[in-house]
Amino acid sequence: MALLIKNGTIVTSTDSWKSDIYCEQGVIQRIAPSIEPPEGTSATVVDATGTFVFPGFIDPHVHIYLPFMGTFAKDDHTSASVAALVGGTTTLIEMICPSRQEEPLEALEVWQSKALGKSACDYTFHLGVTRMDDEVADQLRQAVERGIASFKIFLAYKGALGIDDTELYRTLNLAKSMGVIVTAHCENETAIYEKQQELLAVRKTGPQYHEPSRPTLVEAEGVHHLMTFAELTGAHVYVVHTSCDEALQAALAARYRGVHVWIETVVPHLVLDNTYAEREAFEGAKYVMSPPLRDKRHQHILWNAIRSRLVSTVATDHAPFDFSGQKTIGRDDFTKIPNGIPSVENRVDLLYTYGVVPGRIDLQTLVDAASTQAARLFGLYPRKGTIQVGSDADLVVFDPDWQGTISAETQAMRVDYSAFEGWPLQGRPSLVAVRGDVQVRDGKFVGRTDHGQMLCREPTHF
Amino acid sequence: MALLIKNGTIVTSTDSWKSDIYCEQGVIQRIAPSIEPPEGTSATVVDATGTFVFPGFIDPHVHIYLPFMGTFAKDDHTSASVAALVGGTTTLIEMICPSRQEEPLEALEVWQSKALGKSACDYTFHLGVTRMDDEVADQLRQAVERGIASFKIFLAYKGALGIDDTELYRTLNLAKSMGVIVTAHCENETAIYEKQQELLAVRKTGPQYHEPSRPTLVEAEGVHHLMTFAELTGAHVYVVHTSCDEALQAALAARYRGVHVWIETVVPHLVLDNTYAEREAFEGAKYVMSPPLRDKRHQHILWNAIRSRLVSTVATDHAPFDFSGQKTIGRDDFTKIPNGIPSVENRVDLLYTYGVVPGRIDLQTLVDAASTQAARLFGLYPRKGTIQVGSDADLVVFDPDWQGTISAETQAMRVDYSAFEGWPLQGRPSLVAVRGDVQVRDGKFVGRTDHGQMLCREPTHF
Amino acid sequence: MALLIKNGTIVTSTDSWKSDIYCEQGVIQRIAPSIEPPEGTSATVVDATGTFVFPGFIDPHVHIYLPFMGTFAKDDHTSASVAALVGGTTTLIEMICPSRQEEPLEALEVWQSKALGKSACDYTFHLGVTRMDDEVADQLRQAVERGIASFKIFLAYKGALGIDDTELYRTLNLAKSMGVIVTAHCENETAIYEKQQELLAVRKTGPQYHEPSRPTLVEAEGVHHLMTFAELTGAHVYVVHTSCDEALQAALAARYRGVHVWIETVVPHLVLDNTYAEREAFEGAKYVMSPPLRDKRHQHILWNAIRSRLVSTVATDHAPFDFSGQKTIGRDDFTKIPNGIPSVENRVDLLYTYGVVPGRIDLQTLVDAASTQAARLFGLYPRKGTIQVGSDADLVVFDPDWQGTISAETQAMRVDYSAFEGWPLQGRPSLVAVRGDVQVRDGKFVGRTDHGQMLCREPTHF
Amino acid sequence: MALLIKNGTIVTSTDSWKSDIYCEQGVIQRIAPSIEPPEGTSATVVDATGTFVFPGFIDPHVHIYLPFMGTFAKDDHTSASVAALVGGTTTLIEMICPSRQEEPLEALEVWQSKALGKSACDYTFHLGVTRMDDEVADQLRQAVERGIASFKIFLAYKGALGIDDTELYRTLNLAKSMGVIVTAHCENETAIYEKQQELLAVRKTGPQYHEPSRPTLVEAEGVHHLMTFAELTGAHVYVVHTSCDEALQAALAARYRGVHVWIETVVPHLVLDNTYAEREAFEGAKYVMSPPLRDKRHQHILWNAIRSRLVSTVATDHAPFDFSGQKTIGRDDFTKIPNGIPSVENRVDLLYTYGVVPGRIDLQTLVDAASTQAARLFGLYPRKGTIQVGSDADLVVFDPDWQGTISAETQAMRVDYSAFEGWPLQGRPSLVAVRGDVQVRDGKFVGRTDHGQMLCREPTHF
Repeated sequence: MALLIKNGTIVTSTDSWKSDIYCEQGVIQRIAPSIEPPEGTSATVVDATGTFVFPGFIDPHVHIYLPFMGTFAKDDHTSASVAALVGGTTTLIEMICPSRQEEPLEALEVWQSKALGKSACDYTFHLGVTRMDDEVADQLRQAVERGIASFKIFLAYKGALGIDDTELYRTLNLAKSMGVIVTAHCENETAIYEKQQELLAVRKTGPQYHEPSRPTLVEAEGVHHLMTFAELTGAHVYVVHTSCDEALQAALAARYRGVHVWIETVVPHLVLDNTYAEREAFEGAKYVMSPPLRDKRHQHILWNAIRSRLVSTVATDHAPFDFSGQKTIGRDDFTKIPNGIPSVENRVDLLYTYGVVPGRIDLQTLVDAASTQAARLFGLYPRKGTIQVGSDADLVVFDPDWQGTISAETQAMRVDYSAFEGWPLQGRPSLVAVRGDVQVRDGKFVGRTDHGQMLCREPTHF
Repeated sequence: MALLIKNGTIVTSTDSWKSDIYCEQGVIQRIAPSIEPPEGTSATVVDATGTFVFPGFIDPHVHIYLPFMGTFAKDDHTSASVAALVGGTTTLIEMICPSRQEEPLEALEVWQSKALGKSACDYTFHLGVTRMDDEVADQLRQAVERGIASFKIFLAYKGALGIDDTELYRTLNLAKSMGVIVTAHCENETAIYEKQQELLAVRKTGPQYHEPSRPTLVEAEGVHHLMTFAELTGAHVYVVHTSCDEALQAALAARYRGVHVWIETVVPHLVLDNTYAEREAFEGAKYVMSPPLRDKRHQHILWNAIRSRLVSTVATDHAPFDFSGQKTIGRDDFTKIPNGIPSVENRVDLLYTYGVVPGRIDLQTLVDAASTQAARLFGLYPRKGTIQVGSDADLVVFDPDWQGTISAETQAMRVDYSAFEGWPLQGRPSLVAVRGDVQVRDGKFVGRTDHGQMLCREPTHF
Repeated sequence: MALLIKNGTIVTSTDSWKSDIYCEQGVIQRIAPSIEPPEGTSATVVDATGTFVFPGFIDPHVHIYLPFMGTFAKDDHTSASVAALVGGTTTLIEMICPSRQEEPLEALEVWQSKALGKSACDYTFHLGVTRMDDEVADQLRQAVERGIASFKIFLAYKGALGIDDTELYRTLNLAKSMGVIVTAHCENETAIYEKQQELLAVRKTGPQYHEPSRPTLVEAEGVHHLMTFAELTGAHVYVVHTSCDEALQAALAARYRGVHVWIETVVPHLVLDNTYAEREAFEGAKYVMSPPLRDKRHQHILWNAIRSRLVSTVATDHAPFDFSGQKTIGRDDFTKIPNGIPSVENRVDLLYTYGVVPGRIDLQTLVDAASTQAARLFGLYPRKGTIQVGSDADLVVFDPDWQGTISAETQAMRVDYSAFEGWPLQGRPSLVAVRGDVQVRDGKFVGRTDHGQMLCREPTHF
Repeated sequence: MALLIKNGTIVTSTDSWKSDIYCEQGVIQRIAPSIEPPEGTSATVVDATGTFVFPGFIDPHVHIYLPFMGTFAKDDHTSASVAALVGGTTTLIEMICPSRQEEPLEALEVWQSKALGKSACDYTFHLGVTRMDDEVADQLRQAVERGIASFKIFLAYKGALGIDDTELYRTLNLAKSMGVIVTAHCENETAIYEKQQELLAVRKTGPQYHEPSRPTLVEAEGVHHLMTFAELTGAHVYVVHTSCDEALQAALAARYRGVHVWIETVVPHLVLDNTYAEREAFEGAKYVMSPPLRDKRHQHILWNAIRSRLVSTVATDHAPFDFSGQKTIGRDDFTKIPNGIPSVENRVDLLYTYGVVPGRIDLQTLVDAASTQAARLFGLYPRKGTIQVGSDADLVVFDPDWQGTISAETQAMRVDYSAFEGWPLQGRPSLVAVRGDVQVRDGKFVGRTDHGQMLCREPTHF
């Protein structure tokens, strides 16, 4: 069915103007000042007066199917995608995290099977490279042919997901040869392990010790290390969830000397700080993620880097574990707390309320960081990430006047707490369309949970 | 008359796609895959098959009317604008350089009168602030009301154009209060003067001593100084003709800590180095500009900074003095050589041949640096700087297959030499339109020399 | 009379060992494990068992005769020198601060006449250069011949003491030609003035606004500026009272690229922070000095820089104004508060109690920073600054077991408050000798107030 | 027998003065202006008029017993120590490089047995830690009790000497707990291996490809990595043979933030550059060491860092392999060329001729960098490294007027080439004493080849 959005203010990463948008067959067909629905068609007509019309937002860093120490993250693709949509996100890029023993193609199939027919929004994957040899290289080449144009590596999580330097070098070389970008979790794995043991040995077992077990210099070390290997190989790399001044500076110094590096930060690091992890009654466990929440001083630096577009993207690293029954596994040992702060539903709202409203970033930067750059970097542009004739009709009608509050009780994420419980919001997506189909109306999911498609992507550089 | 450009590949700062463009009344009316001229109109139809269609390029830093030590720069607005157009530049931003004695509004009127009816392309001005007091402030406010939304200051040229720290602080404060950006020539004036005297005292009088008289640390000092004052006042600033690693790093360090700073480099610094100024038989004088041409190592750094969009714009600092009769004034004293390397005609060609062809930058970055960012920063966007419905039909049809050579004999600039004599070129603007009128065809000016309009601009931030 | 110090632990900037010291005619004659007084001489014999024997400390940055807005600093040379001695300091280097109108030689004579016959400890001067022309240059040359081997310049205090860039360049050039080091107060004068006016305009008049009126970037700007001029001229420079991370980094970056720069910090910046200036009932005025007290985070950086000998010296910038009647002049306008935190008496005690005792620095670094480096940099070494045969018998017997408290009531400085009122001390100079004469015994001044000599110094580099 | 050196100018790391020195029982007994030999003793009297008397120099980084790919370095302890003495070096610190399979104590015994009775100068060892587990830790503790107060680790030489991150962390922790300093070879091993394979794969097999196989960023990565682990553990670390700007900056940035790090450079990096490794006819192989010789621009940076005492020590990394028969092993594969540039004999001469004579460093800095700092850092001070009463009578009488030439034909090192063949020298050690015994006279070895003692050392920090 056709969709006609009238009288809104379109905002892209570069422009902002009043215009109508007409969509048909899932695609934007016309953008013009005053469009009437073609005769003989029955179009859904939306009056967007007083609202912003954004391109569908893209979250380039989420976990949904996530086995962890015998348990699983709580969202399935249905709940996660519905939460994403309610929050204005129309495309998810999920991390495939095979163990070292698993074959990459097998893992790809597992993850694809989990998502197939169960996602309300579109999706694709970063394929985790947790081992590298000739056999793996072959499979990675096949995966790229199947439309997976980005890899994910871990310098952290020793013995589990982490790769060694030889694997790192070869993964980057392989990626470079195919034009595939490599996303990387950058923390020095050994340093963390040793710090953890030291803390536990002196009975520092609470969630407040998570941050001291992986201080900023450990993250900066990881980034610096990746930068060296990226410079040696010429690969394109993307540092996920950059949380601090030191790590950011390591990446920017490399960019200055010619390294092809892009930087992601995630919304929890922008609005939460390490004092949350110190909350009493084990409440702090709700705020355990890696890299950890940092001292508040880093927030200003991250916001400024988004504003000046030194940081390219804002993602979530969504990893939804319940507080009761899951986070509590680590009650006596912070290293056992499942990592993650669920936020796929809150990202855009938080960026708007705590970024745009107080003037830290402007609307175009919001779109750039939360949509356009992810599309560009990961081979989705201009199908996604912008509002152009020919682009997918992924559209968010955002009502800046709405006021509300975040609460676990009302959230769509299938998790028993919100890290932002009670936080006021200004503005929200009132209507969200995915390829022309209205999936969210008046802030409520009203669509089909099997509407989402897997997106095949091309390599982005040569 | 209408203009229809068919079958070209449109390139903007963010996108690239095949499409036709239809223009009428000076404005882009439609962009669509296959447009036929409306019946009953007589449109000029251009077949752009195999070419790129760029938005008209903008040179945000030129000098045309330029009195200098009793002589004048050789171009008038006609010759300069024709040269610009032949080189693909459809908008010029000229520096108004009043002496300390002149009133700003008077200077504005002088410069406007020089250009009025004599420019083949559109134009506007940065208004030089070479003195600051209450009276000047009043006049600057009036100038902004008249559409002059940017100032120019000099930290160099002591006693002539340079302002002192109190004037600097107050100029930035005033600009901030009006949302006006301040462009700045950053070199420490005193250091240069003293170095010059030292060199002349030991008979180092040739053009090769121009660079040693204003080494990179003198430029870095100027930038650092401006950054301090920009941080204290919150003003938006723009560093012109950044020539070296050290100056660039000073600006980027400031950006990282929150200063609103943008960076310009100019095309001579990208392709020429200080060995040119050492050429025998006083040939070196042709290569005297300020900041001076630097060691070759800086070129790589500048190109990389353009590629990664740390540098926003590439301008020319066009200042056309003849070799014979003008540059030669300084035969016995390099401090008397009129400064400037004429290049308004060559900028886009050089960026394409020496930037795009060898892969240093891509096409979109070319458009961004040579057009879009200047439009954005100086209040011309989206009228200029992009290809959108509603934008001025300033369009460059660029033939990437053309091959030729730069020569003073064939150039449009009214100056007796070319700094790039004999350099091969790959590609050139074959057709250039200004507000829908074809001004250049087959690389030749074919239009009206009074077609250009003065552009009124709004302040860009608040 | 001879002096024999037995059984102490001698500490120099590089060594520490148990030895006796025998002095005669004002000079150290022998250092050996077990010395008996020569027969026939009557020597004062001091049992230094359990104590450290340090070389007399040198404070290279004090103000004594200091006219200020119609009033004068409260110490005269007698009270200041007695306070210095009680605190273990045996040599003072006083700043001569002529106004722009005064002639340097005249100023030198004024300051010399104030000190002559009235100082209990030895002394010399840094000669302020507050104007520079050929006449001044001549006089400076004469001053150097008279034994004044260091200059002082101000980048701050516009219109009063500050010099402009031309004067700066020429002063450095002159100093370089004579091998004289130039000490410099580095804050950008104009930025401060403008900030002050802005704060006063919105009725921010209290002492807590002193720091915001001259933030760290203003000091860093001053240092960066000096570094540029030092690099251009090759002069040896010394940055006084460096208070913050940013300024320190500016100086160290310059040192790395070859600038001959040394760095001083002063004791108030090591132990006090900007919260002191926020104290109620105008108490904050006691803590007003320039550069101002900073955020506590800078203290750790300064201590570490002393420990790793990146900072060369710790001085005081002693400038003694009473709270009542003097500091109170600025009750309604912080810019009128006389600047200074009296501490000539407390420097060594504070460095020991708050530096050595908690392990921030070791004993040898205490000696290096508070004595040896000042002697080396300012042409007093090895006469002063070390314990060697042939050196002046300026000796401090320091009892590490003494415990006490700082109080204005018991201090020797002639000022009505102590910035460190009630602070506990661990250790103090129990006996202090100047050229072999015991001037302090049991922590009390017991000597002659006219014992001090003016020290003639040679230039230190060529 | 007693030794009396008369009329020389004594130079230490801090002082310089004319004095006589009287030594007995291997120790300096008196330093005074004019000493006559005690009656009844037969002292060797040396007239040192017109010469400098330096403390014996210490080379803290040499290889003597060095098995390498089935061959051995050519020097034994006799030839190496004689060469050292002729060159003014009276103490050697040799690297013990056990394989991963060897036990540390066993290795210590092997190395000690090689040296015992065969060294003409004094010596001690850095004990290589090439594996770390509880058993190794135990043995290291025992080694420290036997007087080995420093370890050596390799981040390079994967699979051979290199340790992994867990071993690194634990080695630093162990060292910290004992107050032992850890010296480290910092290059990322994996990056080098991969680069080597890439170069060999395209038949880049000559010695000129050694540098590109381990570029500066690989060394900087190693240093940055060590800095992170040193900061996490608080260990004292010492970066050996720092060759370049980037590595130096990584270490200095760490020092600024509080890391306890000291920096060594080696004499080949100060006077040779990478063009030497490009010499024809496989001559370049003579100049293969690791880190490799660098671009000439780094030399200026290293000299300046020595001058300003940012770099603590200048060693040699002496590793003597013949050109014919040894270096030539790598004729078809640069990775097989035995690494090393023999220079234990030339270090002081080169520092004097190419450092002191042209004014890059002064005499005291020569002593500091080539003697005193090594003594301090490695627990030999004040027994070695200075001229004081009670110190070992290791003395170098240096004739600054001697002129000569370096040549393999005349050298004492048992290797068939000199990297400095034909280089002119200004000045040389004319007489060298070890613990009072004259071992070198008129530049010739005249002493006993079994005079050297192993030096037991205490840990240096707590």
